[in-house]
Amino acid sequence: ALTIGIDSGSTTTKGILLEGDSIVRRFLCPTSFRPADSISEAWETLRAGVAEKPFLTLTGYGRQLVDFADKQVTEISCHGLGARLLRSDTRTVIDIGGQDSKVIALDENGNLTDFLMNDKCAAGTGRFLDVISRTLGTQVEQLDAITDGVEPHPLTSMCTVFAESEVISLRSAGIAPEAILAGVINAMARRSAHFVARLSTQGPLLFTGGVSHCASFRRMLAGHLNSAVFTHDDAQYAGALGAALIGQRQGKR
Amino acid sequence: ALTIGIDSGSTTTKGILLEGDSIVRRFLCPTSFRPADSISEAWETLRAGVAEKPFLTLTGYGRQLVDFADKQVTEISCHGLGARLLRSDTRTVIDIGGQDSKVIALDENGNLTDFLMNDKCAAGTGRFLDVISRTLGTQVEQLDAITDGVEPHPLTSMCTVFAESEVISLRSAGIAPEAILAGVINAMARRSAHFVARLSTQGPLLFTGGVSHCASFRRMLAGHLNSAVFTHDDAQYAGALGAALIGQRQGKR
Ligand code: SF4
Repeated sequence: ALTIGIDSGSTTTKGILLEGDSIVRRFLCPTSFRPADSISEAWETLRAGVAEKPFLTLTGYGRQLVDFADKQVTEISCHGLGARLLRSDTRTVIDIGGQDSKVIALDENGNLTDFLMNDKCAAGTGRFLDVISRTLGTQVEQLDAITDGVEPHPLTSMCTVFAESEVISLRSAGIAPEAILAGVINAMARRSAHFVARLSTQGPLLFTGGVSHCASFRRMLAGHLNSAVFTHDDAQYAGALGAALIGQRQGKR
Repeated sequence: ALTIGIDSGSTTTKGILLEGDSIVRRFLCPTSFRPADSISEAWETLRAGVAEKPFLTLTGYGRQLVDFADKQVTEISCHGLGARLLRSDTRTVIDIGGQDSKVIALDENGNLTDFLMNDKCAAGTGRFLDVISRTLGTQVEQLDAITDGVEPHPLTSMCTVFAESEVISLRSAGIAPEAILAGVINAMARRSAHFVARLSTQGPLLFTGGVSHCASFRRMLAGHLNSAVFTHDDAQYAGALGAALIGQRQGKR
């Protein structure tokens, strides 16, 4: 049977149409000013042309904003499940999205054993990279190309607001923007490594969420963790994937 | 004898020319891109026309940036001393400056017993009010007049970055800017009250630093602390005053 999982995040809305363990369709859009609209758009797009109404599971911040879902599940459960589908031996998930970050510890069978969540401080989330990139007139998508092979300039402030001022000072002092950007990514990767270290975790570690697409971040994170950091082309869909999987299991009962 | 105390803060440089317990001259300017320049300016302005070179004590972030001071002292010691000169029975000092905040506990004799310092997170410092005021097109100096008697609109985010987005959303949703500003001040005052509560403190409490000039903040802080909050016209000079006092004592030995 076909099921749909939608992850209504504060920055991006992600959706998956799933059949068994296979992704049939993906949906991704920036979350609208009215997050419920993005959920509806995901739902309509994913189910288009599907004869029987698929079981719909919602997760993420906006999961309670619409009334047409069959089930609502917390992000932590969905992310763990989705991560295991992307890489079956995953024991630790680090998810860094636009406005939050989480670390999830799983046992051998993929059951949740512990987790940490930050959605209170913009530092350590994608927002940090957004703010600094904007300050330097760069697109987040270009971060990799710009910082490739560049020696990071040390950054003192971890607060997004203070880091923004520091970055402006560094520019005025003539430091090259690519060295500053590499420094910013490195500072955030170090912070994320500390975040992971607050849980007792095991490898393999799967990096999910929007920030996982940044290869230089991944490299620096691996350096600070002193361990391998895996990712997946569909890593941003981990939550939606987990939600769709819950629907598959539901159907089997 | 005349002594000078200069408090080189990250936002504002303050200076005092002191004779005994009496303030002879005040100096205040925004800290320049080169903080040492602001210290020199304070020094030249305050000693202008003074025959004998006054004993100079430096405090604040920039205190090690120039080599012409007779003494350098940490902010915590200076703020405690300065606060006691402004109000002799002070037992607790809460100082909120442009980029940091501190709570200082004093015993009956004014000796430091404990303190807390935050300079890592922009929320809870003057920067928070700056950022939000700028977002709403207001001057920090006008906050009092604008929010006088206005019912605060609740604010969810305490992170400066997330609060900025929330404020933009509230504006789009048609909430009046004065209600938002009152909500912002209230949220920060509540946070500051929690900060004070982390130390075991006693009254009387003196509120110093740039933010102490905001009467609505003071009122809301008193509400959240459920105790009186005193201030002083010279509250922003507490650190510089303490530094100048140290010079007076030095001279007596
Ligand atoms: S103001 Fe800075 S340190 Fe504080 S919560 Fe926000 S990003 Fe984090």
